[in-house]
Amino acid sequence: MSYSGAVQELIDQLGRLPGIGPKSAQRVAFYLLRCPPEDANRLAGAIAEAKARVSYCPKCFNLAEQGGLCAVCRDPARNPRLVCVVEDAQDVVAVERTGEFAGRYHVLQGAFSPIDGVGVDQLRLKELLERVTDEDITEVIVATNPNLEGEATAMLVHKYLKPAGVKVTRIASGLPVGGDLEYADELTLGRALEGRRSIEEPQNAR
Amino acid sequence: MSYSGAVQELIDQLGRLPGIGPKSAQRVAFYLLRCPPEDANRLAGAIAEAKARVSYCPKCFNLAEQGGLCAVCRDPARNPRLVCVVEDAQDVVAVERTGEFAGRYHVLQGAFSPIDGVGVDQLRLKELLERVTDEDITEVIVATNPNLEGEATAMLVHKYLKPAGVKVTRIASGLPVGGDLEYADELTLGRALEGRRSIEEPQNAR
Repeated sequence: MSYSGAVQELIDQLGRLPGIGPKSAQRVAFYLLRCPPEDANRLAGAIAEAKARVSYCPKCFNLAEQGGLCAVCRDPARNPRLVCVVEDAQDVVAVERTGEFAGRYHVLQGAFSPIDGVGVDQLRLKELLERVTDEDITEVIVATNPNLEGEATAMLVHKYLKPAGVKVTRIASGLPVGGDLEYADELTLGRALEGRRSIEEPQNAR
Repeated sequence: MSYSGAVQELIDQLGRLPGIGPKSAQRVAFYLLRCPPEDANRLAGAIAEAKARVSYCPKCFNLAEQGGLCAVCRDPARNPRLVCVVEDAQDVVAVERTGEFAGRYHVLQGAFSPIDGVGVDQLRLKELLERVTDEDITEVIVATNPNLEGEATAMLVHKYLKPAGVKVTRIASGLPVGGDLEYADELTLGRALEGRRSIEEPQNAR
């Protein structure tokens, strides 16, 4: 015997979520069956609501609501001539949390990885080039992940924007703050050495 | 900046599920935003559907649908005079998977743990006693978890059913099959020694 129809269906649907295995799916399903109906319905409602209301910003492809521009593109206080290129909408939030960036974003919606079917056409590169030409952008900061796909994407952005003659920079790789030289891997430490700079006042990207 | 209303609400609701931390909630939320709308709606629907349709069996408190008896209680092939007492509906499925039990169940809906507010009145003990008296039950197998709460619950069931004069047995504790004597903890090994039996044909609980 396994579970009855509705319970099994719930376990199956939960098990399809990333990072949720069969055991977790079962635990979550039983939690949902036990909890007050309001709580379960609030979750079901939040899923449906987010799916119905959330869309992508037509300008930078960050998350937006009701088909309009995203919060960053709508904000007149942000520097429109400085654009930070990231892979995903999550990365926008990560950069925002630093409080060090006051420009706009451009979300590529992925990283260059032909083996996973993400090539030049799957990334929002054409739209980025259009923005660079139309919006008089002076600097493009490439903040893709410091891994194989992210570095490849950074090179791609650099090559793609070359004809436009815009300044393209890459965020620094190096030791994480609070890290320990002794435990740093040699690639990271090598990058930290390579990217050394003279000790002076830091410059914010504003 | 954090996420916009509908996205943050979805992350918050997902983060309330057991075993899902803030990072997992964010990952699941972004998965749901990216996936086809049918998939997300199927999950939202499964939650609402399970919540609306699934109820507890009025006889044994196992999961049932539409307020009726559960699949085990409805099955005329099962031995109605043998009852296995478990803590939760998940445990019914665990016992069913063994294929070694052909009786009925009684789900206590918890384990005795006064510190968590689960006392005698929160468990389905009164209903168990009623069943024992009314249904001419000959043996009650207590299959609560082999931990502190489960053992306390087993003792409680034993004491509670004493006046009815029914045979109350407890599932064996010992080394798990495929386990290794060398790595067994002393409590488990002690129980295995204490519960030793003569080598003979095993008896099924049918």
